[in-house]
Amino acid sequence: MTLDLRADPIALTAALVDIPSVSRDEDAVTAAVETALRTQTSGFEVMRHGNVVLARTDRGLPTRVVLAGHLDTVPIADNVPGRFATENGAEVLYGCGSVDMKSGDAVFLHLAATIADPAHDLTLIFYDCEEIAAEFNGLNVIERELPEWLDADLAILGEPSGGWIEAGCQGTLRVRLSTTGVRAHSARAWLGDNAIHRLAPLLNRLSEYRAREVDIDGCRYREGLSAVRVGGGVSGNVVPDAAEVEVNFRFAPDRSVDQAVEHVREVVAGLDLGFEITDSAAGALPGLTAPAARGLVDAVQAHGSAGVRAKYGWTDVSRFAARGIPAVNFGPGDPNLAHKRDEHVPLTQITAVTDMLRAYLTKDSSDVDRLR
Amino acid sequence: MTLDLRADPIALTAALVDIPSVSRDEDAVTAAVETALRTQTSGFEVMRHGNVVLARTDRGLPTRVVLAGHLDTVPIADNVPGRFATENGAEVLYGCGSVDMKSGDAVFLHLAATIADPAHDLTLIFYDCEEIAAEFNGLNVIERELPEWLDADLAILGEPSGGWIEAGCQGTLRVRLSTTGVRAHSARAWLGDNAIHRLAPLLNRLSEYRAREVDIDGCRYREGLSAVRVGGGVSGNVVPDAAEVEVNFRFAPDRSVDQAVEHVREVVAGLDLGFEITDSAAGALPGLTAPAARGLVDAVQAHGSAGVRAKYGWTDVSRFAARGIPAVNFGPGDPNLAHKRDEHVPLTQITAVTDMLRAYLTKDSSDVDRLR
Repeated sequence: MTLDLRADPIALTAALVDIPSVSRDEDAVTAAVETALRTQTSGFEVMRHGNVVLARTDRGLPTRVVLAGHLDTVPIADNVPGRFATENGAEVLYGCGSVDMKSGDAVFLHLAATIADPAHDLTLIFYDCEEIAAEFNGLNVIERELPEWLDADLAILGEPSGGWIEAGCQGTLRVRLSTTGVRAHSARAWLGDNAIHRLAPLLNRLSEYRAREVDIDGCRYREGLSAVRVGGGVSGNVVPDAAEVEVNFRFAPDRSVDQAVEHVREVVAGLDLGFEITDSAAGALPGLTAPAARGLVDAVQAHGSAGVRAKYGWTDVSRFAARGIPAVNFGPGDPNLAHKRDEHVPLTQITAVTDMLRAYLTKDSSDVDRLR
Repeated sequence: MTLDLRADPIALTAALVDIPSVSRDEDAVTAAVETALRTQTSGFEVMRHGNVVLARTDRGLPTRVVLAGHLDTVPIADNVPGRFATENGAEVLYGCGSVDMKSGDAVFLHLAATIADPAHDLTLIFYDCEEIAAEFNGLNVIERELPEWLDADLAILGEPSGGWIEAGCQGTLRVRLSTTGVRAHSARAWLGDNAIHRLAPLLNRLSEYRAREVDIDGCRYREGLSAVRVGGGVSGNVVPDAAEVEVNFRFAPDRSVDQAVEHVREVVAGLDLGFEITDSAAGALPGLTAPAARGLVDAVQAHGSAGVRAKYGWTDVSRFAARGIPAVNFGPGDPNLAHKRDEHVPLTQITAVTDMLRAYLTKDSSDVDRLR
């Protein structure tokens, strides 16, 4: 299968969809991408590492941008090859990976082959095994074995974001809050002290909790403090002496993990509870005030069809953020359609993302004006 | 092993303890009891049914009293044969079954052989397999296969009650109260509706609940409404859409099951909860106002060492109560020592219960005065 990188990225997306590439079975698509980059781009050092294809320019430009996309998909569900259709008056492409994320890959590949006057040095990373356990993730392998390939002023992951810039990510903290009481036979309940009843004031606090909203670099973060599990009880005739609620605090990236713990302690202050941290991960600041990131925001806002918003979940973006590199998700397609049998991408989004990204990556900033 | 029914019931208790009779291994003790009843009592029809020994008089007396006791014990724990000792200045008998309930059996056997002028016709039931699953319970077998043997104006079970009359029993009701919400990713908690948080008002009601106390036939019943189990949660990153609390309502026997259900509905009135009854058993009124029962209460109160109190748990007493027959537990020994390795019974309680019961079962009521 030969990929034509200079063709319309819509056609290139369809060609990529038609190469099956379920996780652990990416040999064919990796070979096609490697061959296309070696034969249809100029100025790139191309390297293969396992089923990861790496390519970079070294033009001595003042800034470097990483464009990274995974080539694998979730299992096929009668949705390969892809097919074009009209959905509510809009042309779309159906197919496994059309959203997550072969349309993003197609935009990156097309731009690598067609940008004549780049504003930034570019690093391309097309990787495998993103849809399965993190230990197999190709970007994880590169971070471990070839970390210098991740260095950049901005990293753009082509994950579906509906053509919006999704930046940063929230942190997460899980705490097990427990009550203790005195066990007794339920026929003599007054001899006991019911640990489940003792959860009442905690659940009142959680019910009444008003989550903070905060703007950081133009992204609005909404925090949340949720009970995710409750448990307790010995048997049907026993007043239980132990009960617990596990809470999950999703916090904006202007708090550290320690500050998040302190906040949860304040929420439950004065209650008689055991407090055990069971899991935590730091958030990532969007970092959109850095100059390289600012340029991308400008290009997107100039286009006028989309903007900037917070990323809530933890994605590969966080790998870069943890290294101090501003990183965003930016790709065509509705992320809510990812992994679905009826996964499909609007063709206009592929074109729009290509245009916005071309404006950002090209030296002549008049491109931006042209897009207004 | 020959049992001497005319000997002091203390010695008879010791002799019974020394015949091992763990549940399902009651052949020896059953044979000894059957032989003793056949050879050392007069006026009784004696019958063997499996490992149950039944005996009854038919003197045409106006009332009939059942004396029922199980002959089996929990597994022996280095506590057979029994041994006499002095405990805090009081003489006691240690041994498996000394409390639960060979001392009660000994009192019944001794009285059957020694009461010359009975006030009531008597039915004796010595049964097996009380300490294991209800399906094996010998009294259960008799109820199913020879139910007329249970007919009486009063049933006395010789279960340990510290020489008190323990009457009636509370009812029990279990209800699963459930909340529903809307599932969402915990990173976007505001899109969900947390079913665990929705348990708060229910737990507030349970915490604030003030249980009723009520006197019935001189027995004080304390009710209780307890959460016995709480559960909910999907995974550590999901706002759950379902949670539930199972409550156990132990209610005084002046309420029917339907009235108990109605009461729980009132307690949770106005809350948005699913309501599913998972288990219920009616209580049993003590029935101590019936003439045959009144006589027993008089005899015990005349003795002055003990009185009447409510029974909280469900026991074989309830089998009789369900048939409209007043039934009580009345036997020597502290029920809290039952099933313990150091099970032991104060000798004075064996004597006191024998005296009180003899006064009740004998026609010449001057016996009661003698005991004052």
